[in-house]
Amino acid sequence: MTKPNINPNSAVVLLSGGIDSTTTLAMAKANGYQVRTITFDYHQRHFQELAAARLLAQKFGVEDHLVFPLDLGPIGGSALTANIKVPKNRIESEMSTHIPITYVPARNTIFLAIALAWAESLGAGSIFIGANAIDYSGYPDCRPDFIDAFQNMANLGTRSGIEGARIIVNAPLIHMTKAQIIQEGVRLGVDYSLTLSCYDPDTLGRACGECDSCLIRRRGFEDARIPDPTIYCPAYREIKSK
Amino acid sequence: MTKPNINPNSAVVLLSGGIDSTTTLAMAKANGYQVRTITFDYHQRHFQELAAARLLAQKFGVEDHLVFPLDLGPIGGSALTANIKVPKNRIESEMSTHIPITYVPARNTIFLAIALAWAESLGAGSIFIGANAIDYSGYPDCRPDFIDAFQNMANLGTRSGIEGARIIVNAPLIHMTKAQIIQEGVRLGVDYSLTLSCYDPDTLGRACGECDSCLIRRRGFEDARIPDPTIYCPAYREIKSK
Repeated sequence: MTKPNINPNSAVVLLSGGIDSTTTLAMAKANGYQVRTITFDYHQRHFQELAAARLLAQKFGVEDHLVFPLDLGPIGGSALTANIKVPKNRIESEMSTHIPITYVPARNTIFLAIALAWAESLGAGSIFIGANAIDYSGYPDCRPDFIDAFQNMANLGTRSGIEGARIIVNAPLIHMTKAQIIQEGVRLGVDYSLTLSCYDPDTLGRACGECDSCLIRRRGFEDARIPDPTIYCPAYREIKSK
Repeated sequence: MTKPNINPNSAVVLLSGGIDSTTTLAMAKANGYQVRTITFDYHQRHFQELAAARLLAQKFGVEDHLVFPLDLGPIGGSALTANIKVPKNRIESEMSTHIPITYVPARNTIFLAIALAWAESLGAGSIFIGANAIDYSGYPDCRPDFIDAFQNMANLGTRSGIEGARIIVNAPLIHMTKAQIIQEGVRLGVDYSLTLSCYDPDTLGRACGECDSCLIRRRGFEDARIPDPTIYCPAYREIKSK
């Protein structure tokens, strides 16, 4: 059996346009990978994310940027894809002990599966995902065990895997705190004002400041002792200035 | 931690409208499951498959039938999603030792991931897939090892999995020959004239008789000693009658 043509220096990076995936992209580039990015267009509330991801892909000079349409609406089960209100101003203990209603069933499984298909089709030997177990806000599919299990399944379920040219799933942020991620990104020159983390941005793409994702992001900049460059919506700026 | 509301008697069946998935549907129904079916609209060449799947779902009186749009075109890498000619009249040794160009990278991973998301959202405790290791025509993601690895990943990557209410992936055909599958289906009353296996049907949904999938299907009916009810296109009927 001949080995399929897999280039270990070519990578597919999952890019949502938030802090984690953007830092992951910066790390892949800094490590010399030839990078392509994939963004999932999976719910209409976040069209601002798509714009952020495209701009970031451009800034980082990636080889190709694929926007993959994936309407998870019919699947249901999440505040991010259905018409459920995103929770605001939760206290930290709530975030860490409860899987939030923003949990999208099997989301990273679906995203990684599609990235795996694209990587295999391109002959790219690496996938990068910004999954993070520390600030994961209760998502089961952001833990190291899950990434390992996906890797094992990918080895068995793809042509390249069974023919001895495995595609490696990299999750370089998995054990980092948000503050460490931000520090690493700043070191690599990431402009975080271009990234969007908010679950509920306004139409101009300004962050609400109060959803779980904004809370974790704000805390990350505080802990990193780096000024927060996030552009918040006026209502939140007013609260903050009081 | 409270267990999530997962009903072990409720199932999601992956239905393509071919022999394997239709027999799997019949088996799930015969075993008393409350069944919902999911069909992936993943390439335009097979709109006839979508029609077959919908009709079969209706015949089996499923609770719900979801057609999930999934354009794998941008992913590339397969004769089934790109503009590559489907191979015809291959000899059996070619089919069993080479992964064919009809292989879609990570297809079952993607399909199972989306079915898993739907099952978790619905609270369905079972997924059924008609994967088959014997007549799998060289696809790596139709082997028992792959199904086991997916199960392990699903246990770790979903809310239900980590909270102790696992969603079980069933592949009841995995060790059956095509002939055994057909015999089981006939026993359960499946009308195989409604199913479509062909990779390259004509516009009326009539089978070409010559692609890998048709070859395996024809051989299955022969081996099962059951008359083949498949509706073939006129060109093939002419060859056959000579």
